[in-house]
Amino acid sequence: MTSSSLQARALELDAADPLAPLREQFLAPDDFDVVSYLDGNSLGRPLRATAALLDGFVRTQWGGQLIRGWNSPADPWLSWPERLGDRLGSAALGAAPGQVVVADSTTVLLYKLARTAVAARPGRREIVVDTDNFPTDRYIVEGIAAECDLDLVWIETDPAAGITPDQVAAAVTSSTALVLLSHVAYRSGWLADAAAINEIAHAAGALTLWDLSHSVGSVELSLDDWGVDLAVGCTYKYLNGGPGAPAFAYVASALHGAVEGQPIHGWMGHRDSFEMGPGYEPAPGIRALLSGTPPILAMVPLDANLDMLSTATIQAVRRKSLQLTDYVLLLADEWLVPHGVTVVSPRDPARRGGHVTLRREGFAALLEPLWQRGVIPDYRQPDGLRIGPAPLSTSFAEVYRGLDALRSLL
Amino acid sequence: MTSSSLQARALELDAADPLAPLREQFLAPDDFDVVSYLDGNSLGRPLRATAALLDGFVRTQWGGQLIRGWNSPADPWLSWPERLGDRLGSAALGAAPGQVVVADSTTVLLYKLARTAVAARPGRREIVVDTDNFPTDRYIVEGIAAECDLDLVWIETDPAAGITPDQVAAAVTSSTALVLLSHVAYRSGWLADAAAINEIAHAAGALTLWDLSHSVGSVELSLDDWGVDLAVGCTYKYLNGGPGAPAFAYVASALHGAVEGQPIHGWMGHRDSFEMGPGYEPAPGIRALLSGTPPILAMVPLDANLDMLSTATIQAVRRKSLQLTDYVLLLADEWLVPHGVTVVSPRDPARRGGHVTLRREGFAALLEPLWQRGVIPDYRQPDGLRIGPAPLSTSFAEVYRGLDALRSLL
Repeated sequence: MTSSSLQARALELDAADPLAPLREQFLAPDDFDVVSYLDGNSLGRPLRATAALLDGFVRTQWGGQLIRGWNSPADPWLSWPERLGDRLGSAALGAAPGQVVVADSTTVLLYKLARTAVAARPGRREIVVDTDNFPTDRYIVEGIAAECDLDLVWIETDPAAGITPDQVAAAVTSSTALVLLSHVAYRSGWLADAAAINEIAHAAGALTLWDLSHSVGSVELSLDDWGVDLAVGCTYKYLNGGPGAPAFAYVASALHGAVEGQPIHGWMGHRDSFEMGPGYEPAPGIRALLSGTPPILAMVPLDANLDMLSTATIQAVRRKSLQLTDYVLLLADEWLVPHGVTVVSPRDPARRGGHVTLRREGFAALLEPLWQRGVIPDYRQPDGLRIGPAPLSTSFAEVYRGLDALRSLL
Repeated sequence: MTSSSLQARALELDAADPLAPLREQFLAPDDFDVVSYLDGNSLGRPLRATAALLDGFVRTQWGGQLIRGWNSPADPWLSWPERLGDRLGSAALGAAPGQVVVADSTTVLLYKLARTAVAARPGRREIVVDTDNFPTDRYIVEGIAAECDLDLVWIETDPAAGITPDQVAAAVTSSTALVLLSHVAYRSGWLADAAAINEIAHAAGALTLWDLSHSVGSVELSLDDWGVDLAVGCTYKYLNGGPGAPAFAYVASALHGAVEGQPIHGWMGHRDSFEMGPGYEPAPGIRALLSGTPPILAMVPLDANLDMLSTATIQAVRRKSLQLTDYVLLLADEWLVPHGVTVVSPRDPARRGGHVTLRREGFAALLEPLWQRGVIPDYRQPDGLRIGPAPLSTSFAEVYRGLDALRSLL
């Protein structure tokens, strides 16, 4: 196809995109000499409403309610971890209320959930994890294996593909306490078959812990229906929560009795935070997963983003996401593959998450010249450019501009 | 003294207060029908600059830099935990650079530091803690004792006083790994003699971990000079970081080799966060205490507050703090003690932190009518009203108005 027909294709897709009007609600990349932001899978862009929401929070809630905000009858801050967790569960996770909290960082929640799982499966001495899982996930269970005297069972994942049910079936045994996997692989974008893998793990008596950081807000999730036991994820990628925004954790209702197995016992996980008496007594339900004071200010951007996601629906987001990555694949095949670029993400839409990774030796050196042209993809070792269009904020024309710049540099 | 002479005293003190002009930099309580905010020891008030700073961050840094902000040459977000830690160390902690990070919550950092200490003292099987320490502190070491098979040695603290070097000397033995204490007691406001207690702990070969939540930004701290090993604290009280703002941790240089003993190994504590290779290798120095992605947005308010504290100086803050609590004691003695109120905070300024706690049966019932009058003290079980004037934002007239309202209710 000619460049002009590829460009025309972008304009057609934008014209037909039911989510296109939502782009106006983001701070426009044009404001910042950014002509193509393709890193929504690393840090989502702020809504225009975010600054105003923070301003309102500082003036009215923090400045006006002051300490009373924690218990304000209208919207007590103390309940925000669960209130936002429930909203997230409904808008993005396929989780019934009472099973999700917003708190801490992904890493800290991973630690707490993995420890919960290990405590809930006493006598089982193995944790299954894959070699291409996100670094924090691997480091967390390496640390837990060392401190709890457990063994790690590594699934060797092809970094250009992802984890399959067969691989998991070959790894789990009656000694497996926990299977820790990413739902969408951070490098390849491979989308794991969570329902099938859960079934395999459960047949062996093991629990599953899914890292949803690269899936939440991008692909459809049905945690309850898939039989997920535990899950964790961040809110600063497709949920546009801002750099270092708090994370979330899901614990299936059936496991709520096990949450007291998490070892970081703080006042916010106590049955009565303000009794302040001797002895830790865990709160009922998922609240026992909380430890310290909830990061209220940092949660403020989430409400507006969940409003938008609820309006758009995750189904429409996923449809556009696949159209966006299809279009990335089209441009890559036309323009980049002839220059020695390899597509290392799944072409099968059923197995493809929200980003496409392109690989070529020397790609690291292109990052700076791309940035200078206002084109911002992500880079991951080794030699991988991740093209991560965010369905709510990225246009097809933006994808065209970005890959056109990449082509011109090759 | 007559009420009018007590009121005149407040006006004199305000007129002579060198920090008085700084009050104008806070969102005025008068904007919100709050005539007396006496809970700076629980949630500090926002600076007027805070909303503007957040707005600028969202628009320019997050919205404009986007993912590049993590490595921006001018002020890389990746270095904020240490950059703000060093600022805090200099302005408030008496800590040389490289020993403080801002991260997580106080509870999570307490967990990591206590585990670090236990790992650094292998074979020692006891943690010393006091019965009136803040709930989270007690719950954390109860949990660690259970998981690491250690014993807790409880110092029975009088809730109306605080911990003394003699009590610590009677509790530590050659089996003590860690002594965990609050520097200013959350109930009584007792200011512990940290230097003397450190010396006693060190003579027994134990490490000390100080919770500075109720002291930082209110009393002078000299962590390096006092020989503190480990410390933790929050930034939402006298540092005005906002509800649930990130916490900070101090690790003395001599213990940096021990930080890899903290068990939550995440990508931000790795020697090279973006290498993403197999195997956790801790970063050198205190950075190994980090786990997940730093909470950047939530750190934004801190810079302006540290600017103000550096300008004011912690010495001047402490001077005004003592004048404020002296004035609280004067009013309490004149107005409240005759109505059966007990002062449970130290009268000795050398042992008094930044707040004064008043106790009387039935005080809980006064909270609501005080709030209705725009007077906001803090309440802590049992029967304790905490009067916590924040030296940077509270006037003597405000203290007068608050205690006058309390008197009228008795």
